[in-house]
Amino acid sequence: MTSLARLSLNLITVDHWSLPEAVERCAAAGIATVAPWRHQLDASSARRIEAAGLAVSSLCRGGFFTAPGADDDNRRAVEQAAELGAPVLVLVCGPPEGGDLRAARATIAAGIERLLPFAADHGVRLGIEPLHPMMVGERSAIVTLGEALALARTFDDPHAGVVVDAYHVFWDPRLEDELAAAGGLVAGYHVSDWLVPTTSLLAGRGLMGDGIIDLPRLQALVDATGYDGPVEVEVINPALARMPPAELLADIKARFA
Amino acid sequence: MTSLARLSLNLITVDHWSLPEAVERCAAAGIATVAPWRHQLDASSARRIEAAGLAVSSLCRGGFFTAPGADDDNRRAVEQAAELGAPVLVLVCGPPEGGDLRAARATIAAGIERLLPFAADHGVRLGIEPLHPMMVGERSAIVTLGEALALARTFDDPHAGVVVDAYHVFWDPRLEDELAAAGGLVAGYHVSDWLVPTTSLLAGRGLMGDGIIDLPRLQALVDATGYDGPVEVEVINPALARMPPAELLADIKARFA
Repeated sequence: MTSLARLSLNLITVDHWSLPEAVERCAAAGIATVAPWRHQLDASSARRIEAAGLAVSSLCRGGFFTAPGADDDNRRAVEQAAELGAPVLVLVCGPPEGGDLRAARATIAAGIERLLPFAADHGVRLGIEPLHPMMVGERSAIVTLGEALALARTFDDPHAGVVVDAYHVFWDPRLEDELAAAGGLVAGYHVSDWLVPTTSLLAGRGLMGDGIIDLPRLQALVDATGYDGPVEVEVINPALARMPPAELLADIKARFA
Repeated sequence: MTSLARLSLNLITVDHWSLPEAVERCAAAGIATVAPWRHQLDASSARRIEAAGLAVSSLCRGGFFTAPGADDDNRRAVEQAAELGAPVLVLVCGPPEGGDLRAARATIAAGIERLLPFAADHGVRLGIEPLHPMMVGERSAIVTLGEALALARTFDDPHAGVVVDAYHVFWDPRLEDELAAAGGLVAGYHVSDWLVPTTSLLAGRGLMGDGIIDLPRLQALVDATGYDGPVEVEVINPALARMPPAELLADIKARFA
């Protein structure tokens, strides 16, 4: 794959568009791969994406193993990924209930173990995504790449892997060592940028080049693991809704290249 | 020391009071130790704190090694710590300039190495404080306890140590292992709590018990390193300014116990 051919647009970036708008605009812009979120889907989504000639790199998101009903919801997420032809279901693993991080981590491990056979039956790989530690209280007890890799290794199953998101992991002094040992466990790679000043915990991500993440270096480290799949652009920032659609997609392509 | 005897009030918690007010109120409340910040000091501060019968646990803060003029400013901070009788100068090490975290970390290591002999001459220990990774862009390239400990070890000098702040490190899956190997390197311990929902990157800390940090467990891990010095309460939250002073200090004492 050439560099631009690896571009996938994670559709949370354009969550202010409908899925039909996003599909049509990506196809028109020559962006051949997308990654929808579950709340963007309806019964027509898989057909619509296929009809536009687009591939799906992943579905966001399963996980939240510490919440009631997680197992049923995660099996449904696996089915949705399979319907879309998404090779990966991204797992945002869920926060601790109360203050017991160790218990949450054990609950997450057990939940993934229960989900794995179902995912394997559907040909969907589970991508454990470590989130930034600032999201530990509300979104994920898994907050380092090292922890995500160690967890994935415990299953010793090709359907368990990790998703590396530059925004969530770039700060980690162990990043280089962890990636050097990641082998075939990388199931996906997401890019955006960390803005300075940092003004928002949730929606303050920047377009590539606007922040302080050394994305070329990180791309090289991820590539060196053997991962040669799609690179998802996933930028969560309300300011993007103010850009004209064609201009936004052209800007993303230019920055990606 | 009994538990309450270890309480030190880090005066950023009451930055809305003048230093004379803080000293008077702590003495009245039976809080025997304080930790001022440099911007709170004037020529009378050391005399005033001593006259009130208070001890000083640390001075906040030196560091910012990646900024121009850091060496001069850090030597001045060491002198101020010595004047106050503070055994520890807390180092907030500074962010990367641009996106090069490795370069920033090297600059920080070199800066501490240059400062150490001066600190030793003044009887002041340098406490490298890892900050939460959400502060990497603006405050500190040192964002994990493991990294701070590894850095402190490189100097092999009793005047180099680390400061453990519960708020900055509680999320870390390696925390238990790092503390188990910390030995005598812990130079200080700070407590506050991580609120859920998490609404602020900078000033959203909670009083102990209002958030999700398992503080009793963390205290036990810190104590097991052999650290038996002051425990600083350091809560940065503008809501505290709305509490009547005596009530705030009584609340802090009750939560601490």
